[in-house]
Amino acid sequence: MTVKVLTIKEDILGANDEKARLNQELLNKHKILMINVMSSPGAGKTSLILQTISGLKDIVRFGVIEGDIASTIDADKVSKLDIPVIQINTAGSCHLDANMIEKGLNSLPLDELDVILVENVGNLVCTAEFALGEHKRVMLLSVPEGDDKPFKYPLMFIQADVVLVSKCDVAPYFDFNFDNFDKAVKGLNPKARIYTVSSKTGEGLDEWLCWLESEIIK
Amino acid sequence: MTVKVLTIKEDILGANDEKARLNQELLNKHKILMINVMSSPGAGKTSLILQTISGLKDIVRFGVIEGDIASTIDADKVSKLDIPVIQINTAGSCHLDANMIEKGLNSLPLDELDVILVENVGNLVCTAEFALGEHKRVMLLSVPEGDDKPFKYPLMFIQADVVLVSKCDVAPYFDFNFDNFDKAVKGLNPKARIYTVSSKTGEGLDEWLCWLESEIIK
Repeated sequence: MTVKVLTIKEDILGANDEKARLNQELLNKHKILMINVMSSPGAGKTSLILQTISGLKDIVRFGVIEGDIASTIDADKVSKLDIPVIQINTAGSCHLDANMIEKGLNSLPLDELDVILVENVGNLVCTAEFALGEHKRVMLLSVPEGDDKPFKYPLMFIQADVVLVSKCDVAPYFDFNFDNFDKAVKGLNPKARIYTVSSKTGEGLDEWLCWLESEIIK
Repeated sequence: MTVKVLTIKEDILGANDEKARLNQELLNKHKILMINVMSSPGAGKTSLILQTISGLKDIVRFGVIEGDIASTIDADKVSKLDIPVIQINTAGSCHLDANMIEKGLNSLPLDELDVILVENVGNLVCTAEFALGEHKRVMLLSVPEGDDKPFKYPLMFIQADVVLVSKCDVAPYFDFNFDNFDKAVKGLNPKARIYTVSSKTGEGLDEWLCWLESEIIK
C-alpha cells in the first residue's frame, strides 16, 4: 500500500510543481518575495508573523496568506495589524498546495505588496512536500519540541532556507541542547541559516528581520 | 485538485479500514488491548509511554510499536525498559497505517502481552485519518502548543477517547487557558476524557494509569 500512495503522490506533486512555477512567475512580475512559513502546530508561526510585520511595516508592504484546516483564528489576529490577509481553509487537507495559493494570490492587491508571508498548516511532515511558488522556506522548531527532531523529520530540515528555534525564552525549563541541534541541522543541510528567537521577548528577532530585508526583491 | 486527493484517499481508507478490522480481530483473539497514541511532534508521546510502562509493568505485560519517518531514537529509549518493541520507519509517510501495524503485530510475541502501545508519527492531522485496529485513541496536546488547537485541528480531538494535556509542569510560563481548552474539546467531543499530566513531575499520571488499567481486556 505504501508504494501505491507514493505513486499517486508523485502525479499530484508533478502537477503541483508546475502550478507553483506559475505562481512564482506571477510574484516575480510584481516583484513580490513570498516566504513559506512551516512548523508543527503551536510552534509560534502566527506570533512570528505578527512580530515580523510590526518590526518592518514602516519599510515593507506585507500581505499574508493563512492556511488552516478550520477556523479563522490566525487571520483574525493578523488583520488587526491592518494589512491584507487571506484565510485558506483546507477542509481537512494537511498542507497548502500551489492551487490554493494561486487563489490566494488572485485575492490580494499584488501591485501594493513587497512581501507575502504564507503561514502553512501546522505539520512538520506533509507541508514540506508541496511547493507553493515561494522564494524561500522558513521553518520554526520550538524549544519545547526537543532537539532530536531533525533526525525524526529530516525532509523539513533539508529543505529549509532558514531554521528558527522559537520560544527560546523558555529554554531554562526544557532540556534543549542547542549545540546538538545545530550539528544535526547542519549535517542535513549545511547551507541552512539557524537563528534562535523568542517572539515573546523579542530576542534574536533582529537577525531574522535583517535576513528577510536582505531578500526583498528590488 | 483537492477533490482528486480526497477521492484517492477514500479508496485508500476503505482498504485500510478492512485491514484495521483484521488487526483488531487478531488482537482480540490474544486478549490484547491496543492503544494508538497520537500528537504533534515533541508533545511527549515517548515520555508518556515510558512513564506508563514504569507505572504498570509489575501488573501489565506491555509491547510497543514505534512509528517514525526516520531514526530509532524512541525505540532505543523504550527497549531500555526490557520490553518487546518494534520500530516502524515509514520512509517519508506522515502516519502509520493498518498494513504497517499488521507487520508490527507479526513481529511481537502476542501470547505474552496484555497491552500494545502504538506511538504514531508526530502529526496532529494525518494520523487521525488512518485506523490501525486500535481499541482506543489517545492524543496528547502539550501546554506549549496552546489552547486554541481544537479549533484548528478538529478531527484529532473529535476521534480521541482520551485527551492528555501534557507538560503541565511548564504551565506557569505559558498562556494556556485550561477552562477554554476543556470547553473547546467538550464542544467537539463530549465523551472525551481529559487528563492534565506531566511525565516529568508525575502530576496527573495516576488518573491516566487508572483509566488504562480499567480498559485491559480480561
